[in-house]
Amino acid sequence: MPSYSIGVDLGGTNLRIAAVDERGTLLEKTTIGTQVSLGREAVIRDMVGAIRNLVSNLHGAGELLGIGIGIPGIIDKDTGLLRESPNLPGWSDFPVAEEIQRLLGKPVMVENDANVAALGEKWLGAAREFKSMCMLTLGTGVGGGLVLDNKIWNGMNGMAGELGHLAVDPDGVPCNCGSHGCVEQYASATAVVRMAHEAIAAGKAPQLKHALKEHGEKFSAKVVYLLAQEGDEASRVIFEKVGSSLGIVIAAIINALNLPIFLVGGGVAAAWPVFAPAMFKEVKRRSFVYVATMPDPDAPQPQKKRTIIAQALLGSDAGLYGAARLPMLLAAEAVASK
Amino acid sequence: MPSYSIGVDLGGTNLRIAAVDERGTLLEKTTIGTQVSLGREAVIRDMVGAIRNLVSNLHGAGELLGIGIGIPGIIDKDTGLLRESPNLPGWSDFPVAEEIQRLLGKPVMVENDANVAALGEKWLGAAREFKSMCMLTLGTGVGGGLVLDNKIWNGMNGMAGELGHLAVDPDGVPCNCGSHGCVEQYASATAVVRMAHEAIAAGKAPQLKHALKEHGEKFSAKVVYLLAQEGDEASRVIFEKVGSSLGIVIAAIINALNLPIFLVGGGVAAAWPVFAPAMFKEVKRRSFVYVATMPDPDAPQPQKKRTIIAQALLGSDAGLYGAARLPMLLAAEAVASK
Repeated sequence: MPSYSIGVDLGGTNLRIAAVDERGTLLEKTTIGTQVSLGREAVIRDMVGAIRNLVSNLHGAGELLGIGIGIPGIIDKDTGLLRESPNLPGWSDFPVAEEIQRLLGKPVMVENDANVAALGEKWLGAAREFKSMCMLTLGTGVGGGLVLDNKIWNGMNGMAGELGHLAVDPDGVPCNCGSHGCVEQYASATAVVRMAHEAIAAGKAPQLKHALKEHGEKFSAKVVYLLAQEGDEASRVIFEKVGSSLGIVIAAIINALNLPIFLVGGGVAAAWPVFAPAMFKEVKRRSFVYVATMPDPDAPQPQKKRTIIAQALLGSDAGLYGAARLPMLLAAEAVASK
Repeated sequence: MPSYSIGVDLGGTNLRIAAVDERGTLLEKTTIGTQVSLGREAVIRDMVGAIRNLVSNLHGAGELLGIGIGIPGIIDKDTGLLRESPNLPGWSDFPVAEEIQRLLGKPVMVENDANVAALGEKWLGAAREFKSMCMLTLGTGVGGGLVLDNKIWNGMNGMAGELGHLAVDPDGVPCNCGSHGCVEQYASATAVVRMAHEAIAAGKAPQLKHALKEHGEKFSAKVVYLLAQEGDEASRVIFEKVGSSLGIVIAAIINALNLPIFLVGGGVAAAWPVFAPAMFKEVKRRSFVYVATMPDPDAPQPQKKRTIIAQALLGSDAGLYGAARLPMLLAAEAVASK
């Protein structure tokens, strides 16, 4: 009987919980709203209640190894504290893992949401055949995750993978992080909407202007994407900026780490057809390491290794699977070190 | 009796060879000219001869574990071929390690020179207390080396660490690598001299103009540095550009990898006093991960971990020590896997 673990995706809107066994089979999944406005205690009570329900439904399904939680925010791995999470006000410096572990009596591990998404894709998704990989998650912001030699690369205190804050235009748009021209300002859903507003304000985007009037508050990156697909020039230019910005960052990481695979995930990744050409063009221009691994049609034998840049496969489940994977890796490590 | 190994620094001008024991003690060192113009065979004959001499002098000093060679160029770790080395014309696609191993009958390992410099500083220099580190080597170009969890991070096929080709100004100065605005174009000795010529041509640098006339062909980055130290404004501006460019790249790597220590080495690193202030300013502005690890004077307890950015310690010997370390790590790995 295989063991299983629980993966939690603690978003600002939805709280998603899944039980996954060691072979990667989804045993059960549940989604409840995150009642952020009711405060931290209420959210934790809901989460713990839902986990207990799931576990009792799965009675007899094997041993529960532990709980992994993906959180959009910065986690200090030394202290286990959530340092900062814009979508979870009132959670700063709160020992999430410790508190839930106390309530459930099982190992609880907390990770940044982009890191667990990367781990999920590495375990069961587009990077499952690779030991090392990088994933950029394009959502409200731009998250990053690195898996090096089969482990999430956390860095000195768990803050590694902040790839959304690599500069693509050092004197560009100011970012909340204090810097300027971070890729998050050009490749997130928020950035797409901002660039659309800028194009409308500049009088250069009649179709976007019309769409904004039509959709009002529901005007979104997806609306801009659909217009770009229909051939609207202003919308296409916006996604070319998304692509070239991603290309600058991916080229930098290829030059630095020479990884075999880069994935682009998150909601905006669905716009791949309209941003990927500009992305690849930029990567080729900026990374001779990438170019060196491109297939050479004149080579006597096909090359064994090349750098792959592709869409993530698991959608929003990547984070759930990756979170569930955390306690399994911990258990495996404990066995290995015995 | 400790074992020892041979480290070789195969530069375009000098061929330096050292015998180093497992404790890091330098047993003997020799420097011969690299007779590049006489061709590859002559250089290899000289190198092998010098290594044999060294080994025979050290007769009785312990077991020779192997030879590590640092080469300024791109090495494909899969094939062991030197892919490209601007300073060693005629060596492209040559199996350096294989050939020398055949001649000497001992394991031979070849690495990029910036990688072995990083490994040297990690073993015996400024990063010796850390498991992971990053080093930028500022010379004719800008080299990079990453040591992650005690090992050189080579990436998929040995091309990792090309940090000199991270863009700091995407539309900036064209680079030989095909990209634009690489940090190598702003922080290498070559770049300092180019920026000095630009400042002179713009009529903004009377003291630099005078120095160029005085030194003629010997006008160098060092001359510009000495003028900057004396307070010459145009020269100071050049080193501020060196510093801010380094800052952008270091901030990017901190955000991506959250490493405990970054070292700046190579000849231009001697200009630390004139470029470091701009470098730190830029890192603080661009990396909230760096800022988060800065000591907080209001914290109840002193923080255990912070990101250190410092000068390398071993000078040009870093590469020799790092190269000598390669066979030791290989031998240790062989023992561990038994």
